[in-house]
Amino acid sequence: MEKIEIPNNFFIPMPVVLVGTQVNGRANFMAVGWCARVNGNPPMIACGIANQHFTTRGIGESKTFSVNIPNESLLEKTDYCGIVSGKTADKSGVFDVFYGSLQTAPMIRECPITLECRLVQAVALPTHTLFIGEIAGAYADRRVIKDGKPDFPAIDPLFLTMPDNRYWALGPYAGDAWSAGKHLKSL
Amino acid sequence: MEKIEIPNNFFIPMPVVLVGTQVNGRANFMAVGWCARVNGNPPMIACGIANQHFTTRGIGESKTFSVNIPNESLLEKTDYCGIVSGKTADKSGVFDVFYGSLQTAPMIRECPITLECRLVQAVALPTHTLFIGEIAGAYADRRVIKDGKPDFPAIDPLFLTMPDNRYWALGPYAGDAWSAGKHLKSL
Repeated sequence: MEKIEIPNNFFIPMPVVLVGTQVNGRANFMAVGWCARVNGNPPMIACGIANQHFTTRGIGESKTFSVNIPNESLLEKTDYCGIVSGKTADKSGVFDVFYGSLQTAPMIRECPITLECRLVQAVALPTHTLFIGEIAGAYADRRVIKDGKPDFPAIDPLFLTMPDNRYWALGPYAGDAWSAGKHLKSL
Repeated sequence: MEKIEIPNNFFIPMPVVLVGTQVNGRANFMAVGWCARVNGNPPMIACGIANQHFTTRGIGESKTFSVNIPNESLLEKTDYCGIVSGKTADKSGVFDVFYGSLQTAPMIRECPITLECRLVQAVALPTHTLFIGEIAGAYADRRVIKDGKPDFPAIDPLFLTMPDNRYWALGPYAGDAWSAGKHLKSL
């Protein structure tokens, strides 16, 4: 297949999360697509957030944040939290908020999965900061746990692609990981 | 909705990529799910990789790596690259390899999108290292670019969930980002 060069500013497909922080004593939520696990043990997750965001101030204040996984029924509210800044709008009433053991990382009751995180490291990059947090608590709706494991079709996560700016649902099952390629071991 | 506490070791849904490196002068590829954009300008991408991996050695040698997005037709080969280490198997012949301007970041011709990255920073974490790279070149199959933009259904990316260890295709369109929530601005 012939390759063409495209602009470097490429965005790999992103899982959509809502990052929760406490700013000036009030819960705030921001839609974030730059989020991934980054350490195995202890479990750590990182979020890349542009420096001017209100969320950056919240993480600085409490050294904690939450990562909430919205489902498709929360798409509009999630998008709203990506459009409007906490600097100009009070987003504390958009969702039903609860707290875990950290007490300063507001989580979203409507989200099927929520994680509360303790800030471990903030990596300063030119336009963004990468906030690395240790997962200190994880909470789920009972209905999305099957046989003791998260059931992802029930969680119904969203994905974001850019610059076409579209949300996508989880697609059909495609194969088994750490298994589908076993027969190629003779390669 | 009532919440139950679940183990902290939760994995958010992951886009699947193949990270390419040159180790001892030979191309090597590893399946990676812990990958996200982390800086806007210049564009940077980060991959969390367990410290014992062969890939870690390759990034250390050349200070470059590639991020390749496989489609569903490459699922088995991708999985194979997640099962088998370059320490024990020569994976240089699994794919048709090409190089870009960096010359030391092997890319996969069969992947519809490939990025070559220059290492900017390696963040040491307890069990993993987070490799942050600046995207120095991006390449696409002409057929996956429509109106000058990447067309994600044509790219046909894979996602991974754990610990159920399942791959998933991109799902149906769910909404427009930075738009679907606009009408909530009166909240």
